[in-house]
Amino acid sequence: MNRYWSSVVHTLTPYVPGEQPKQTDLIKLNTNENPYPPSPRALQAMAAEAAESLRLYPDPNAERLKQAIADLHGLTPAQVFVGNGSDEVLAHTFLALLKHESPLLFPDISYSFYPVYCGLYDIAFKQVPLTEGFEIDPDDYRITNGGIIFPNPNAPTGRLLPLTAIRAILDNNRDSVVVVDEAYIDFGGESAIALVNRYPNLLVIQTFSKSRSLAGLRVGFALGNAELIEALERVKNSFNSYPLDRFAINGAVAAIEDRVYFTETCQRVIATREHLTQQLITLGFQVLPSAANFLFVRHPGWDAGELAARLRERSIIVRHFRQPRIDQFLRITIGSDQQTQRLCEALADILE
Amino acid sequence: MNRYWSSVVHTLTPYVPGEQPKQTDLIKLNTNENPYPPSPRALQAMAAEAAESLRLYPDPNAERLKQAIADLHGLTPAQVFVGNGSDEVLAHTFLALLKHESPLLFPDISYSFYPVYCGLYDIAFKQVPLTEGFEIDPDDYRITNGGIIFPNPNAPTGRLLPLTAIRAILDNNRDSVVVVDEAYIDFGGESAIALVNRYPNLLVIQTFSKSRSLAGLRVGFALGNAELIEALERVKNSFNSYPLDRFAINGAVAAIEDRVYFTETCQRVIATREHLTQQLITLGFQVLPSAANFLFVRHPGWDAGELAARLRERSIIVRHFRQPRIDQFLRITIGSDQQTQRLCEALADILE
Repeated sequence: MNRYWSSVVHTLTPYVPGEQPKQTDLIKLNTNENPYPPSPRALQAMAAEAAESLRLYPDPNAERLKQAIADLHGLTPAQVFVGNGSDEVLAHTFLALLKHESPLLFPDISYSFYPVYCGLYDIAFKQVPLTEGFEIDPDDYRITNGGIIFPNPNAPTGRLLPLTAIRAILDNNRDSVVVVDEAYIDFGGESAIALVNRYPNLLVIQTFSKSRSLAGLRVGFALGNAELIEALERVKNSFNSYPLDRFAINGAVAAIEDRVYFTETCQRVIATREHLTQQLITLGFQVLPSAANFLFVRHPGWDAGELAARLRERSIIVRHFRQPRIDQFLRITIGSDQQTQRLCEALADILE
Repeated sequence: MNRYWSSVVHTLTPYVPGEQPKQTDLIKLNTNENPYPPSPRALQAMAAEAAESLRLYPDPNAERLKQAIADLHGLTPAQVFVGNGSDEVLAHTFLALLKHESPLLFPDISYSFYPVYCGLYDIAFKQVPLTEGFEIDPDDYRITNGGIIFPNPNAPTGRLLPLTAIRAILDNNRDSVVVVDEAYIDFGGESAIALVNRYPNLLVIQTFSKSRSLAGLRVGFALGNAELIEALERVKNSFNSYPLDRFAINGAVAAIEDRVYFTETCQRVIATREHLTQQLITLGFQVLPSAANFLFVRHPGWDAGELAARLRERSIIVRHFRQPRIDQFLRITIGSDQQTQRLCEALADILE
């Protein structure tokens, strides 16, 4: 408590991101980073930005990047919003499009930043339980609401909702904005971007942090009807004119241009995921079907927190959420084949 | 108007930054960028970041950078907050420390983003007129308030408030946070950072965009009592965990380490400012005393908008604010000696 703080500060419960250890010899499978480096073309483009031009402000509208994203997805730049990571894009989305009288809906098991944004902006919300199998049931979203948001694939479960189910949610909620948070969609899911031109109430959010291997660069974007994007631009231009620096704008453009590299690395992650799934099942784990670059698993004979601690002793970090319904699960990022091999060896050793 | 927009979106009047033209052969004296490149050490450090490590998230707390800033100013890292440009730092400051029942005070002629933040966060404010000579009078800030903010040197006037006057404001307002926005302080002013350990209600905000020649990188910071910083951290961690990318963190650290380069380039800008001031006076301009990297000038015989347009025809851009009290002034960024020479030639030609 401090007399100088605004009242909202006293009530905030900030988000706690996964650990970013200083130690570099760890096998880091806790924050869903890509095991492969960014596209060499992206690295080259960013190296070229370390130049005199940094004395000048970047383009406040990041037009090059909006155009590249629009071209990639067959949309127009007016349907594209860009921000400092998808977390910033989400923050502006909560304030611009999801703050209404009726409560915002999102799954009870979901990205744990959602309730934090609601706290920041004083947004009423209601958490909708996932099914027993940790799936989203579209029928559960047929209640009065001021907006709907969910990750697809969901985090931390990895479960994918098919496009038909997303259409059902959109059809049943034409007066609300429906946000599909697709941070992990490139690892095997079908994107709702295909629906953007058909639904004026749909906003799709993606990031360069996962499938583009650029978590260290901070670029995210939203796609939707131009009027939804206009709301985000208004908030952004009332907050910070230049959220994307010159490295971010030009590195992201080059990453998009390198389509072959992108497809190849995504395929490698998917192949490792399928292989790891089989290995974990062999070790006695229950593994939820995943369309993401992580697996959500439990072992019937072991406490999840205990397992995470034992892995940590062996220099392997995975994510454990001390939260109802999922406190016996571990979220394991898909690393390289070598990393997952070491993970499986460590697990076999512990379980023995 | 759109039914999907949150109510606040309808009421926003976003900030409009100075033009960032695509055309590269212009003499750009409109957004107070530094005419000199960033430190070669900073460029080298950033080039080294274009590497595989970009696949990993940056340090969410940017500890290296906080430590470097703390060391530079004789403070502790707990007294340092960093953000994506000082605009983001300001945004969080408005929400975390300046939103109270009584109105926030700032000068009528000041950074035009301040009322925009108030609109975004629904903060009551009162604009306090500058004196006839465009100075801040500390006695004008002896009224009930929920906070005080002003740039020093002020923008767009360039006028400097001495530390004795700032102490008077701090002493008279011990129940309010007083924010000194020092974007331009390195061009000849005395920083209020020296007062941070003495006043628990003081927050000082600075940027790497001007004196460090890194407008394209987006790094700003705030210094103050650890409890004020804690409020900013809470808001930041409820908004975006990783606002500074790997280039920003490491480029800014290297820029701080290159103290000689920093001092030299600041001195060059100051020398050019003094020379340009004399030239403009010779051309018949009234020039406000400036401690910044720009001059605020008027010509008794010419309409300011007309002059700006004539300069633009000659490929020189300066900033003209269509705003009461200052619509007959132009704000001219201090460029290189060559650029200011061309400016003076163009002005002589126009005035002839």
